[in-house]
Amino acid sequence: MPEPKALIFDVFGTVVDWRASVARESVPWLQKLGRSDLDPHAFADGWRSRYIKIMTDFHKTGREFVVLDVLHREMLDDWLGELNIDPSSIGEEGLNEWNMAWHRLDPWPDTVEGMHRLRKKFPLATCSNGNIRLMLDMARHGGLPWDAILGAEISKSYKPSPETYLGTVRALMLEPGEVCLVAAHHGDLAAARKCGLQTAYVYRAMEFGGAPSPDTTTPQDWEYRATSFTELADRMGC
Amino acid sequence: MPEPKALIFDVFGTVVDWRASVARESVPWLQKLGRSDLDPHAFADGWRSRYIKIMTDFHKTGREFVVLDVLHREMLDDWLGELNIDPSSIGEEGLNEWNMAWHRLDPWPDTVEGMHRLRKKFPLATCSNGNIRLMLDMARHGGLPWDAILGAEISKSYKPSPETYLGTVRALMLEPGEVCLVAAHHGDLAAARKCGLQTAYVYRAMEFGGAPSPDTTTPQDWEYRATSFTELADRMGC
Repeated sequence: MPEPKALIFDVFGTVVDWRASVARESVPWLQKLGRSDLDPHAFADGWRSRYIKIMTDFHKTGREFVVLDVLHREMLDDWLGELNIDPSSIGEEGLNEWNMAWHRLDPWPDTVEGMHRLRKKFPLATCSNGNIRLMLDMARHGGLPWDAILGAEISKSYKPSPETYLGTVRALMLEPGEVCLVAAHHGDLAAARKCGLQTAYVYRAMEFGGAPSPDTTTPQDWEYRATSFTELADRMGC
Repeated sequence: MPEPKALIFDVFGTVVDWRASVARESVPWLQKLGRSDLDPHAFADGWRSRYIKIMTDFHKTGREFVVLDVLHREMLDDWLGELNIDPSSIGEEGLNEWNMAWHRLDPWPDTVEGMHRLRKKFPLATCSNGNIRLMLDMARHGGLPWDAILGAEISKSYKPSPETYLGTVRALMLEPGEVCLVAAHHGDLAAARKCGLQTAYVYRAMEFGGAPSPDTTTPQDWEYRATSFTELADRMGC
């Protein structure tokens, strides 16, 4: 297997701990709404579970591409509705500010050191469903040294659709087999492999707070496997 | 005038010294072709002069968007033809390698320090006609700390077309008046101002080796004015 010429990354769950961060960001809003009885981690899980469903089915709906910020906001409204929470006391502005929680996700403890090591050898780009502004804000928040923000917004399509991977590969002016997707989710890696990409699985035990991942795609024999970005850097000779 | 919320940059001439870099990169190729009699700076000027003409008229031609690497290669072929140079001794591979000269342009001496200072306060993005891979390689070559690579390839249009500026502004999820274009060319700034952007002019005396810039658009009273990125950082309170 030839060494890849660039690494592209799933971000939510792989690079950053969305669950703990969205929980933290949601605490003051749940308080304002008089619902501090709710577990903020369970709240984050409910928000995220809508994401997984919407992404998998997005292209079947025939809906025109809209950025993830728009979809995250719709998921928030839907989740609040299911919880019978009336958000009128925080209003549109409050809901939009709450929605920005996704722009302020913290990296896993090994992320930044691992990225700096990997980046000495490989260009690093996002291949996330997150929009450009979301990725930009998150990178400035967490100190993530991306070489480029690619993925959904530049390809106008959502993973696991092939076009998200292939549009990202094209922007890098490489062949699919020259690019390796780094991800914590077997379904993401399986979709990338179908497009001809190399794959690196990073196990993130705490993505769901210790509970098993809802990503039930059968694990395969990925080209690389690690439990942290620093271990991945070791395995890739960085 | 409110302070901008993000800075976007013209790159060729403003951030990097294309002329000295393309001249340096062209020397070995001119030697291989037996034309070391040609002045490499004049060679660079001839290559670049085609760029200015093609960009201004690109959208009038009705041609579908292609990335700048493709256009740079066509300009090289055209320029070699005008010089009666037969490139067969270096072949397609050589011509494509020579064309990559534009991926290895050096920053001006004040660029990297100025960008690091400006970046503490503002997100920094490219608004160049250069494609993503070109900008990525150049950033890794010169150590340019971009937050995002935007501009032509993400908007599928070339400056001075309004869509290049407005597509870049949309990706940042800002209003045009919240974004400031930094450029060394009056025509670029004038086109951005027409779209509602703020403008910062950086005078690059040596872009054409000391000769006057062919950018003949009447200078206007730009919001900011400096002779280096470090001076611009001073003026912007960074």
